[in-house]
Amino acid sequence: MRIARFSSSGSDPRYGVVEGAPGEEEVVVVAGDPLFTPLSPTGERVPLADARLLAPVIPRSKVLGIGRNYAAHAAELGNEVPAEPLVFTVPNTSVAGPGDPLVIPAWAGEELHYEGELAVVIRRLCKDVPVERVPEVVFGYTVANDITARSLQGPDQQWWRAKGADGFTPIGPWIETDLDPSDLRIETRRITGEEVEVVQDGRTSLMVHDVAAIVAHVSSAMTLLPGDVILTGTPAGVGPVRAGQRVEVEIEGLGVLSTTFAAPERG
Amino acid sequence: MRIARFSSSGSDPRYGVVEGAPGEEEVVVVAGDPLFTPLSPTGERVPLADARLLAPVIPRSKVLGIGRNYAAHAAELGNEVPAEPLVFTVPNTSVAGPGDPLVIPAWAGEELHYEGELAVVIRRLCKDVPVERVPEVVFGYTVANDITARSLQGPDQQWWRAKGADGFTPIGPWIETDLDPSDLRIETRRITGEEVEVVQDGRTSLMVHDVAAIVAHVSSAMTLLPGDVILTGTPAGVGPVRAGQRVEVEIEGLGVLSTTFAAPERG
Repeated sequence: MRIARFSSSGSDPRYGVVEGAPGEEEVVVVAGDPLFTPLSPTGERVPLADARLLAPVIPRSKVLGIGRNYAAHAAELGNEVPAEPLVFTVPNTSVAGPGDPLVIPAWAGEELHYEGELAVVIRRLCKDVPVERVPEVVFGYTVANDITARSLQGPDQQWWRAKGADGFTPIGPWIETDLDPSDLRIETRRITGEEVEVVQDGRTSLMVHDVAAIVAHVSSAMTLLPGDVILTGTPAGVGPVRAGQRVEVEIEGLGVLSTTFAAPERG
Repeated sequence: MRIARFSSSGSDPRYGVVEGAPGEEEVVVVAGDPLFTPLSPTGERVPLADARLLAPVIPRSKVLGIGRNYAAHAAELGNEVPAEPLVFTVPNTSVAGPGDPLVIPAWAGEELHYEGELAVVIRRLCKDVPVERVPEVVFGYTVANDITARSLQGPDQQWWRAKGADGFTPIGPWIETDLDPSDLRIETRRITGEEVEVVQDGRTSLMVHDVAAIVAHVSSAMTLLPGDVILTGTPAGVGPVRAGQRVEVEIEGLGVLSTTFAAPERG
């Protein structure tokens, strides 16, 4: 099931289930937030084409990310694969929706990178989750772009703004609740006008630490809350994106997350 | 004005203003959350001695911390003072209340350190705040203990659990809204049975980057929301704490934040 958060005709954010054949999808509107309320259709249906999709969840608590979780990506940046997941935290103010433009901050420098990733959405409050019980605490999956100001990761030491600045974590287009995350294709495309470059083409089966290992590890140190989002790392092929370009991240069985990049605002 | 969040006789959390002479304080109960609602006393007063103080705010978005913001502390750990504030993020699940016990996680190792700090509480949504306008976005100040699993900061690289694990960020006892943060004494005491050691004795005037500089800097990268908390770094004198000890952080004009430490749970 595809759970979307959306606005139509300027309405406040609502939730719905996306149904229908490709090109003819509709959003079956539901009452309340499906993370906290049993699914209850209101009877209203909105054509997907008329809905503005929003980030499918705004975490009440946190976004966690995993660095160097694909060996080929760790190698391309000259890093070792860590024995335990390399975890970092990102504030919820970093989350953006599908299609949202990112205005590149002036401080970000030239090396703003896309990173296509599978994201896990947590279903329930949990702590110390054993690997074998992780499926019970997962609500579903979405697509993420872990946008990174590469040149600041070293000098800043902690990645608070290199990965956590406003808009640096677009997610969407929806949450798929029925998905086996173990072997999905992740493709990232960088688009300049009519030119489309496939820049990342990986599979989730190449993760060093899989979804269950990641959730078990992070929950050993901190309580996870419903709606917390965990990014699972990016495959090889990261690279820069500049104003005027668009990046699409597509994950098999999930959909496409698109982000446009705009020129820095001048102070 | 001292704004507290508290529970009495097992009630849900409420807010109040702490008034009265030392030893005879009362909590003047108010309706709603003073961060979002104008102060409106309900008429009820609760003796402070009968109130269980809670963390005075649970951030909806984030806790930010600043590393190496006192030169003598940077030096004691062999670090340079950074030219810009060294910022890190901590999830809201790390926040604990005054008096709450911290059960030391088994993974934290021997080197769990206290770090007494002044904390800033943000009043309003803001971004790109100029230094001279920072007072407009500050709601008040509280005391924090930036508890740190020192031995994991290096191996983990990112400080997600070294500083962000459950309970690692006690704050309290209340928020003081009328306070000049520029030159306050910070004293940290480590207490073992009857023995009291003064382990940190610094002044906020020794900060490398002051409150205004910190808020301006972090708001250049991310939107701050009402209730966001920013820790401003710790003076020299950090050191280990072990199960059975208690740590008090006292800041002039603010009060005392006390945390007890308990033995790790055995799996």
